[in-house]
Amino acid sequence: MDDLKKYIDENHDRYLEELFELIRIPSVSSKEDHKEHMYKAAEWVKDKLLKDGADKAEVLETQGHPVVYGEKMLNPDWPTVLVYGHYDVQPAEPFDLWKSPPFEPEIRDGKIFARGANDDKGQMFMHFKSFEYLLKTNQMTCNVKFMIEGEEEIGSPSLGKFCEDNKEKLQADVILVSDTSMIGPDTPSITTGLRGLAYMEVEVTGPGHDLHSGLYGGAVDNPVNVLCEMIASLRDENNHITIPGFYDDVLELSDEERADMARAPFDLEAFKKEINIEEVAGEKGYSTMERTGIRPSLDVNGIWGGYTEKGAKTILPSKAHAKISMRLVPHQKHKKIEQLFIKHFESMAPKSVKVKAEFLHGGEGYVSPTDTVAYQAASKAFETTYGIKPIPVRSGGSIPIISLFENVLGIKSILMGFGLDSDAIHSPNENYSLNQFRKGLETIPYFYKYFAEMKARK
Amino acid sequence: MDDLKKYIDENHDRYLEELFELIRIPSVSSKEDHKEHMYKAAEWVKDKLLKDGADKAEVLETQGHPVVYGEKMLNPDWPTVLVYGHYDVQPAEPFDLWKSPPFEPEIRDGKIFARGANDDKGQMFMHFKSFEYLLKTNQMTCNVKFMIEGEEEIGSPSLGKFCEDNKEKLQADVILVSDTSMIGPDTPSITTGLRGLAYMEVEVTGPGHDLHSGLYGGAVDNPVNVLCEMIASLRDENNHITIPGFYDDVLELSDEERADMARAPFDLEAFKKEINIEEVAGEKGYSTMERTGIRPSLDVNGIWGGYTEKGAKTILPSKAHAKISMRLVPHQKHKKIEQLFIKHFESMAPKSVKVKAEFLHGGEGYVSPTDTVAYQAASKAFETTYGIKPIPVRSGGSIPIISLFENVLGIKSILMGFGLDSDAIHSPNENYSLNQFRKGLETIPYFYKYFAEMKARK
Repeated sequence: MDDLKKYIDENHDRYLEELFELIRIPSVSSKEDHKEHMYKAAEWVKDKLLKDGADKAEVLETQGHPVVYGEKMLNPDWPTVLVYGHYDVQPAEPFDLWKSPPFEPEIRDGKIFARGANDDKGQMFMHFKSFEYLLKTNQMTCNVKFMIEGEEEIGSPSLGKFCEDNKEKLQADVILVSDTSMIGPDTPSITTGLRGLAYMEVEVTGPGHDLHSGLYGGAVDNPVNVLCEMIASLRDENNHITIPGFYDDVLELSDEERADMARAPFDLEAFKKEINIEEVAGEKGYSTMERTGIRPSLDVNGIWGGYTEKGAKTILPSKAHAKISMRLVPHQKHKKIEQLFIKHFESMAPKSVKVKAEFLHGGEGYVSPTDTVAYQAASKAFETTYGIKPIPVRSGGSIPIISLFENVLGIKSILMGFGLDSDAIHSPNENYSLNQFRKGLETIPYFYKYFAEMKARK
Repeated sequence: MDDLKKYIDENHDRYLEELFELIRIPSVSSKEDHKEHMYKAAEWVKDKLLKDGADKAEVLETQGHPVVYGEKMLNPDWPTVLVYGHYDVQPAEPFDLWKSPPFEPEIRDGKIFARGANDDKGQMFMHFKSFEYLLKTNQMTCNVKFMIEGEEEIGSPSLGKFCEDNKEKLQADVILVSDTSMIGPDTPSITTGLRGLAYMEVEVTGPGHDLHSGLYGGAVDNPVNVLCEMIASLRDENNHITIPGFYDDVLELSDEERADMARAPFDLEAFKKEINIEEVAGEKGYSTMERTGIRPSLDVNGIWGGYTEKGAKTILPSKAHAKISMRLVPHQKHKKIEQLFIKHFESMAPKSVKVKAEFLHGGEGYVSPTDTVAYQAASKAFETTYGIKPIPVRSGGSIPIISLFENVLGIKSILMGFGLDSDAIHSPNENYSLNQFRKGLETIPYFYKYFAEMKARK
């Protein structure tokens, strides 16, 4: 593949133009009024796959946003790679914190700034262009399928059924995904573990309507105060989650495994500086890497209640709400955690209020072995580009669908992520470094090459 | 005053038309974009006072919204009554909970529904019409002054200086105010105590921007979780406020005084049913009436942080905010409480976050004696209308300006409120019963009569 770098050089401007077209479609999956943008983005992906060389590509209906399926079947004897990605993005709010409009990509300081620049439009697009390159230069050595969904950011509620209904069509030797980060720009890594997720929304109702806080304050329980107390009680002084049974299924790592993990490079001062905090905090007895990699966590993702505009309004609010999510580790089942949470939340509510807790979405964690052909092929591809072997890491994030792929399709996934932790995905000013984008374009084609070679040798 | 009821009958429709004109002006003092409405309401009040018989009325500038001053000086030997009221109202949000538009008054079930129907436009207006009646029928026996402000709902920030600057003009024997409630439609009461207020806004900042809750959750303190924990820690298991020094100046009542208070009729079941709660809650060792009447309280009036729209966004938010106010009892000074709160809030913040706490507004509590001529005149006026003596009660609400009047002008106030606790002031569907409105119109003229008679006898 001596021509790879030259091909990228010659086509780079066009690549960006194409990617920017996709980014400009505000395909926010959680917003009901964005439905037309979801179809527009799906059609765009379909057209792009056909143009890049797919024999066939189609927008397939699901119970929710559509899935784009595409394929290039070259030789029945060759191994088949199924590329997974998602064309949907997180909401861009709060808009006023963006330096440039979230759906108008802008290059500054060698980075693309936009919602979806990385997650996952930018990373997914590297696969489209690697596919184009290998086909145009007659170097493709695998059959390739694409499954590009539109509901990843809302927990892929329709993809399970889609996989069940399309098992035959989706058969492959490996699923290839770029939707994660690597340790640093010069330190490649392959994500071998992901956390699961259980995302809840709770409502606490006190009085039937907002009350005057002077006339009633002190004699009627305030649902915001009560919600704060309930949330506070979900963690103890060691930052251990207090929901009964929460840790029952947590996979405890051996001292040896923990020592292995501790060998991954990690600069605590740089970590703190990057996100502008004075001190890290988390479960007692675990390192920062362990707290996100192998331990579950609980975060309030949003809270609201009462008067939140400028100035003072002296009310005792009727209702308080919060979105609370838990990241889960392998063996914790999100459905069980969801039930434990609801039971605990309802049982600890004082009689002075009514509470509701509902499950919004979730997924299981995942652990990938490192002794598979696919892992070795990915490792060698990174080594070819970076000159060093990538480090296997457990990520704190969740791609719930990865464990679903294994359960429904029986296929393992390889998580070749080229993002950086500083890319601010899910945040204002999400960005994707042009350098990382380039490195992805240089690395992915080698995965196909090595995967085919290693498969053939076996 | 045999003609009083007849006069009201004949003019009632016009009274409502006039009041509705005022209600239709959305004079929300806390909103910066309502400035023109504040002037419009002030001009309306000035014109009305002149039309109702004032010799002079003027809109006077302050550092904030204007004060309307009016007077009718009939005889230098007569006592002078200064009527206080406010033409500003609370914000009407959330609009979608109103059954009819907040600034379009509507009569349903014998009640006027609108923002300001009671607080304070409706109650203040009873004074304008009592003034009109007494002048038109030549039965006025006092000199009358009016001071109608436009900043009561934001803590009357400009009225202190206004009183300082206009001490001479405002000289009077008593200040008469209708801006409180009575116990029930058949149980008149006079408010003899008010709580003070210290209203704070706090901000907790964690990471410099919103983070992905999967990649960081568990290793970085979440400012919403931290804020909840800080708020939870402000009360102990007995609902005692934990801010060091908070209770130092609280006036403790004697057992005898508490027994006196307990004689006021109070139906706990009706109270709970009215606001739709299963159980009351509050400081251990005190009754519901005591919890709002003689004990301080702490309420979160609003809280917000992170993602609060529909659906799920997996962020670890950068910031969390809350509006927290404390109701104070006599002898607690709001400036001291404000300092204690800020010191405590800052000192309990973990090093993983930064906190800011600022004072929005406040005022002192007030206690009024019952052995004054003014109290006795008000008591007799109620008795004339209702056939029973009114009960002196301590209200949980705050009218910070009442204690300021005493300190700056040296004048005691009489709080002749005709509201009911069910009027939902400060809430959606604020209302004022036509029956209460009528009873106010029937009672207030007698105050002037008895006050002049009792003063003359002294």
